[in-house]
Amino acid sequence: MKVLILGIDGYIGWPLALRLLERGHSVSGADNFITRKRVKEVSSDSVLPIPSFSKRTEDLERSMKRKVRFHRGDVSNPDFMYEIISGEKPDAVVHLAEQRSAPYSMLGLKQASETMYKNTISTMNLLYAIKDVTPESHILKLGTMGEYGTPNIDIPEGFFEIEFRGRKDTLPFPKNAGSWYHWTKVHDSNNLMFANRVWGTRITDVMQGVVYGTRTSDITSDDRFTRFDIDEVWGTALNRFCAQAVIGLPITPYGKGGQTRGFLSLEDSITCLTLGIEKPPEKGEYRVFNQFDQHYSVGELARKVKEVYEREYSRKAVIENVPNPRVEKEEHYYNPESKKLRSMGYKPEGNLEKDLIRIMEDLNRYGGRIEKLKKVIMPRTIWKKSSGITH
Amino acid sequence: MKVLILGIDGYIGWPLALRLLERGHSVSGADNFITRKRVKEVSSDSVLPIPSFSKRTEDLERSMKRKVRFHRGDVSNPDFMYEIISGEKPDAVVHLAEQRSAPYSMLGLKQASETMYKNTISTMNLLYAIKDVTPESHILKLGTMGEYGTPNIDIPEGFFEIEFRGRKDTLPFPKNAGSWYHWTKVHDSNNLMFANRVWGTRITDVMQGVVYGTRTSDITSDDRFTRFDIDEVWGTALNRFCAQAVIGLPITPYGKGGQTRGFLSLEDSITCLTLGIEKPPEKGEYRVFNQFDQHYSVGELARKVKEVYEREYSRKAVIENVPNPRVEKEEHYYNPESKKLRSMGYKPEGNLEKDLIRIMEDLNRYGGRIEKLKKVIMPRTIWKKSSGITH
Repeated sequence: MKVLILGIDGYIGWPLALRLLERGHSVSGADNFITRKRVKEVSSDSVLPIPSFSKRTEDLERSMKRKVRFHRGDVSNPDFMYEIISGEKPDAVVHLAEQRSAPYSMLGLKQASETMYKNTISTMNLLYAIKDVTPESHILKLGTMGEYGTPNIDIPEGFFEIEFRGRKDTLPFPKNAGSWYHWTKVHDSNNLMFANRVWGTRITDVMQGVVYGTRTSDITSDDRFTRFDIDEVWGTALNRFCAQAVIGLPITPYGKGGQTRGFLSLEDSITCLTLGIEKPPEKGEYRVFNQFDQHYSVGELARKVKEVYEREYSRKAVIENVPNPRVEKEEHYYNPESKKLRSMGYKPEGNLEKDLIRIMEDLNRYGGRIEKLKKVIMPRTIWKKSSGITH
Repeated sequence: MKVLILGIDGYIGWPLALRLLERGHSVSGADNFITRKRVKEVSSDSVLPIPSFSKRTEDLERSMKRKVRFHRGDVSNPDFMYEIISGEKPDAVVHLAEQRSAPYSMLGLKQASETMYKNTISTMNLLYAIKDVTPESHILKLGTMGEYGTPNIDIPEGFFEIEFRGRKDTLPFPKNAGSWYHWTKVHDSNNLMFANRVWGTRITDVMQGVVYGTRTSDITSDDRFTRFDIDEVWGTALNRFCAQAVIGLPITPYGKGGQTRGFLSLEDSITCLTLGIEKPPEKGEYRVFNQFDQHYSVGELARKVKEVYEREYSRKAVIENVPNPRVEKEEHYYNPESKKLRSMGYKPEGNLEKDLIRIMEDLNRYGGRIEKLKKVIMPRTIWKKSSGITH
């Protein structure tokens, strides 16, 4: 299959490219390297050292004898989007090229509007380019489980049958996101659903859980590493906890730590995305996957990291709950469904214990790089304080 | 009260200003006159002749001895938004300054993205400016009943209590809009709800039905007319039907004409908005009004226009169903609730028969202006054909 990965230089994009090449697909990609730039702007860096993108592809050409066609540009520019779709005529486009940080979107009006604009417009450009150029192509778009929020009822996969005042209908499940970033993903999902209704575009809308891990089975050596972020803006909970433990910093869940989310290993994320690509939806189909392995509370994960670290490294780890910078429920019901991918053959390989051991092993070799990031780990982006220009 | 009307030059904005002045409020407004420009771009014009905005305010100063402070600019520019909020420090801001045409948003990628960008960003700017400058101010934002779509169950006002798999929660009612324009209103509603959750901003989110009419009780002479659009891009169903009847054109419902929507007279729209302004929500409250008088199918309205016209003018009128340019259900269940405004004292004054007679009377005097618009009345903007740049 010909697969075009938008955001091929990212945490998910890069290992996905490796997997698709391994499985014999023809892979092209686009990126504007904005994440590399934005991470530097907050004085942070990927904990795992990653080569430049051109070095990445040169290495692949040497080791795998495979080429990745690369297009540098911004997919929120419609000309660029049409150019790459016309040039590649892909069977599937995986859209991972959105601003992906909730805290970044809450820094202030400028970042909120930029996230709103870049994310929704990139998806609009993609929908129109596919409609006009290759209407049979499959769009696989990365959303987030965070779109659903934490309702007090079960979370189905995208749609549910409800009875209300004696009548029934199958409707989109109500979304209730927790940051501007998360809301842009909701807006995207709505726009994707509508484009499918009007034009019949094949769409997979992936509600993905929080991804953790340093490796996939294709990352066979350090020079194939994908980026790994732990700072308060660009990092995520479990990855950050491991890094904190490894250099003897307190592990810091936000608030009470009862916030429960779906999680999956990087290996499982890549497996699921590959499955979605290789088994595309029918013409006219809009399908929603809830893509995660298990759900855990943030507090549970902190305790697990502490336990594994103390056992494996025979050193103490400390958990220190810090004031929650976000506005979210810290104790709540959480029961999302995730059946579709499993029914298509997804067998989770994630094993939290083993995964944590492996992550710590990788991070431990880069302790010096984590030390340098100490100042940017603790939360400074406060949801309630998000503010704009003032006069 | 100090009320700032964003979009004060529009179909709703202008009569709202008149009403608020009549009731003794201090009124300021902003507009960039984009609707006047866009309507000209499709070779159309307001059927009722309207003066320039400066003429409008000069006339008011003469007749009412009241001043309207006016700011010319684009509310999708954050600097402009902060400037007017800082300058006016309003008790209430009524946000009517969004791209308001569903067909315009479906013309192609450029118009779709422009609608997405301008509408969502103007609301983001407003939310941040209020949060930073006058956090006690009330935002009254114009949405549309079209956000809900046409579910097979009753439509509550914004939220509903549901039971799903044996558990209960009160959640936002699922939205299912029918054009990019309508979706931007959904995105806005979601963004407003979130800002309220994080910052406690007082918000009224108005899901308004289709407004019809040439007059309110404050439009006491022709020089106070508000704009009245009937072309396929900027006009709306019932107003267009009246204009068609008046110059002997067939009345043209789209498709089978079973599409049912909430409708209200311009008089009722202004009454409801004024009520929302004068009885603001509590600090921390986000409230949703379903704002309409009655619901009718488009076919029913066509028949009513025919009946009234034939009786009043003793001439024949013809109904001609034309192929539906939109993607929508043409026969469906429709039972939206509208209780909140009524419980606050709203008594609908709309009387379809009398209103139609009055509209036809006004339009009949401007038959020559309608004749000139004959070429732009029939639908040319086809949902399925909406397309972007091609290479």
